[in-house]
Amino acid sequence: MNENGTLQSTSIIIFGATGDLAKRKLFPAFFNLFIEGRMPEKFNIVALGRADKENNDFKSYVKENLLLFSRNQTEIETEWDKFQSHIIYFRHQIDEESSYKDLDVKLKSLDSEYGVRANRLFYLSIGPNFVSTISEHLKKAQLASNPSQDRIIIEKPFGHDKKSAIELNNLLSKTFEEEQIYRIDHYLGKETVQNILAFRFGNSIFEPLWNCKYVESVQITVAEEVGVESRGAFYEGTGALKDMIQNHLLQILCMVAMEQPSSLDSGEIRDRKVDVLKSIRRIPLDQVNHYAVRGQYGKGTLNGTDLKAYRDEEGVAPDSNTETFAAIKFYLDNERWDGVPFYVRTGKRMQEKHSYITIQFKPLAQSTFSGGKHDLSQNKLIINIQPLMDIRLQFMTKKPGLTVELRPVEMIFDYFSCKEDTPEAYETLLLDALEGDLTLFMRSDQVEEAWDVVKTIQESWENNPDPSFPNYAAGSSGPQECNLLLQREDHSWEHAHIDLKV
Amino acid sequence: MNENGTLQSTSIIIFGATGDLAKRKLFPAFFNLFIEGRMPEKFNIVALGRADKENNDFKSYVKENLLLFSRNQTEIETEWDKFQSHIIYFRHQIDEESSYKDLDVKLKSLDSEYGVRANRLFYLSIGPNFVSTISEHLKKAQLASNPSQDRIIIEKPFGHDKKSAIELNNLLSKTFEEEQIYRIDHYLGKETVQNILAFRFGNSIFEPLWNCKYVESVQITVAEEVGVESRGAFYEGTGALKDMIQNHLLQILCMVAMEQPSSLDSGEIRDRKVDVLKSIRRIPLDQVNHYAVRGQYGKGTLNGTDLKAYRDEEGVAPDSNTETFAAIKFYLDNERWDGVPFYVRTGKRMQEKHSYITIQFKPLAQSTFSGGKHDLSQNKLIINIQPLMDIRLQFMTKKPGLTVELRPVEMIFDYFSCKEDTPEAYETLLLDALEGDLTLFMRSDQVEEAWDVVKTIQESWENNPDPSFPNYAAGSSGPQECNLLLQREDHSWEHAHIDLKV
Repeated sequence: MNENGTLQSTSIIIFGATGDLAKRKLFPAFFNLFIEGRMPEKFNIVALGRADKENNDFKSYVKENLLLFSRNQTEIETEWDKFQSHIIYFRHQIDEESSYKDLDVKLKSLDSEYGVRANRLFYLSIGPNFVSTISEHLKKAQLASNPSQDRIIIEKPFGHDKKSAIELNNLLSKTFEEEQIYRIDHYLGKETVQNILAFRFGNSIFEPLWNCKYVESVQITVAEEVGVESRGAFYEGTGALKDMIQNHLLQILCMVAMEQPSSLDSGEIRDRKVDVLKSIRRIPLDQVNHYAVRGQYGKGTLNGTDLKAYRDEEGVAPDSNTETFAAIKFYLDNERWDGVPFYVRTGKRMQEKHSYITIQFKPLAQSTFSGGKHDLSQNKLIINIQPLMDIRLQFMTKKPGLTVELRPVEMIFDYFSCKEDTPEAYETLLLDALEGDLTLFMRSDQVEEAWDVVKTIQESWENNPDPSFPNYAAGSSGPQECNLLLQREDHSWEHAHIDLKV
Repeated sequence: MNENGTLQSTSIIIFGATGDLAKRKLFPAFFNLFIEGRMPEKFNIVALGRADKENNDFKSYVKENLLLFSRNQTEIETEWDKFQSHIIYFRHQIDEESSYKDLDVKLKSLDSEYGVRANRLFYLSIGPNFVSTISEHLKKAQLASNPSQDRIIIEKPFGHDKKSAIELNNLLSKTFEEEQIYRIDHYLGKETVQNILAFRFGNSIFEPLWNCKYVESVQITVAEEVGVESRGAFYEGTGALKDMIQNHLLQILCMVAMEQPSSLDSGEIRDRKVDVLKSIRRIPLDQVNHYAVRGQYGKGTLNGTDLKAYRDEEGVAPDSNTETFAAIKFYLDNERWDGVPFYVRTGKRMQEKHSYITIQFKPLAQSTFSGGKHDLSQNKLIINIQPLMDIRLQFMTKKPGLTVELRPVEMIFDYFSCKEDTPEAYETLLLDALEGDLTLFMRSDQVEEAWDVVKTIQESWENNPDPSFPNYAAGSSGPQECNLLLQREDHSWEHAHIDLKV
């Protein structure tokens, strides 16, 4: 019944178990892993919360949320009874030493039930301000003192700049070995993102083209349709650069640009990613405007609905300088990518939700079909991450008919055409953490290098309010300057599917 | 109305106008070109036949056959009246000088109707035995004496071996300049075959992979489901090598293997094709069995229907040595294709009708995913010619799910998904002949080199009857030796679509 016969007994301790992430993502993910027989044979989810709650009330709350957020609805009926027996609500005050002593007693009593000192997986589903408090208390109470068994999962933000990231890493390192720390970037758990490595290194035909000899530019777009919603106050201190580019987009860039790892060993893969981050040319402070564009949405409309300006959102300052859009041109100073721009952009309140990568290949140097009437579009490889999940190759064919005319077409591999259920990012990542596989998690040096990459942009933007804000309408495709960024190189942003273009 | 305003007035003279090809292919093709406004503004189809027929009776016969064979049925109603006015039945005896004098008078009278000496397009839709007779009479009567205006279309076979091909070419050259001679290979008119050049040279990403560094083998299959049908007596003197490999398959091989032509100029393209034929390593007479496999179908069944053995077909000798199947391994002695086998095979009475090209890429030398549980299939590019008309790329992706497992998938570009009507090969080729474009027709040196390529195989097979005949069952995939041919190189025949494989 349990496919993971090898997984050791585990106590999963969730800090912030009554919060939004837990109800939307964590419990549904654990439930899915459970019904797929992926959880350890013996495990408990110790859900920590401030309130004095009945265990059964909390379980009802979890079940309600499964009914709202789980992709396996029919199994809730049949499997809930078994699953709920693994949930333990446990009252806990983050800043009280006695709470950790109580937790110690609880975990030890679970260990005696298991008949073995179980693995411990601490999930810090709480605000960044509490990380140091929890970390120190865990150390004092010796709750995570076994490096080979005890792991801690931390959500972003991992600091808010390079300095604070180093401080956070130093603090964590007092309690945990680096290999105990699972810094989660849920983007890396997505099937379409994970597949980048398989696509590049599981095939013989793409890697020969994957370099500056054949690639003209790489483009990474993560467009969100939503605005800041109820998170205005939080977002004011963040912005697109820190919220998206420093982590998600740079991580995707690493997977596109990295050298071939010699194996799937997590250290090896993370080394190759750090190599990429190190190779990214740092943008001099006085040239930030040449390489980077920021935007903030004003009011607008989408599909007939009027949308507020960012500055009118709840919790946002009326003269806010926070960017809700960022686009940056990076260069990688290494042999493979010499001279190839990597354009990344992300924004809120865009025309449509869409994350994708475009490998734009160079035009034909000279060709049988040069000149004349042929609309020789450049070849493109598009990796759609979400909501489209596909890979498409755009190339030229003869237009069917009696004349020799070329026109662009595309061939598509669609993930949805594989019948299998695509697991959610959190399922993948939680299972990896249970199994002790660090590959898809961020190592301290990855985080610090990524902050270093955006350092000057951060400084420039924080110290120089943009007088043009708001500079794009909600529901549009971002500020005009974003297009100029590419036009200077005679490039343009590519659409994610050919229908938009032709 | 006439898109081809530039096309000069033309008299099209069909020898054998009452034959099978004319009714199935030529008249439907001319009709389609007509309704598409592709024919010259002034033209006549002078249909030659032995019988003393009324013009109207012949026209009715043409209309009946259009109703059977044209892909534009609705237009027959509306356009027939206009089209039929261009058809002239003309009684003619191939071997009588007076017939050509009459034809001369007729063509001249048409010229006066046009008000200009029109172009003349002679279509020899007759058996090969009559080519020399017609050619000599045309010369004597000076019917095709204007090289810039008069063209002759010849159907295969172009000789039956190298010697006879040279003789035929010499004979034709007494009457015609080489640029007047349109040797038709209808395979080259197919959209999917024409597209090979567009695909290779209209894109920047395929040509870098298109060589011995990345390609393991090239496979070309032309499988027919039909047997010899009513053509047994003819086929006895031909066989798969002469009927298919020497022309169709070698021509496709040329398009796959050729160097990039500097332009679309017909001379340039035909030069590059001849280069390929010249580079094909000639198989020594005593090694034919190592490089080539022949087969002859015995009785069998397909979809529940019993099928005759070849030797039981009408017109076939009971101890016939004629091959109905041939497979050959070629090597090209040039830099691009050093050591890459080109496997070609064709057969009658195969399991299914299917023509396709497979570019089998080399396996990954070493990989992140080497070892372990990954079913690392090699990358393949498949160009389906007919009845499937698509291009598919087979590559590895991550199998969706919680483990890192790779599996082969394919992306597909389907010609049928382009709404446009795909013209039939004969439309393309007849229009090219009307326009004077020789690109898709065979030049004398192409024909002679192609015969030279198969010369030793021909000699070996003709002089050494195969005692194993019949060696494959009708409705099967050919003789077992055909698989051994590839197994010796550790290769195997690739299926045309992935469903068959996985």
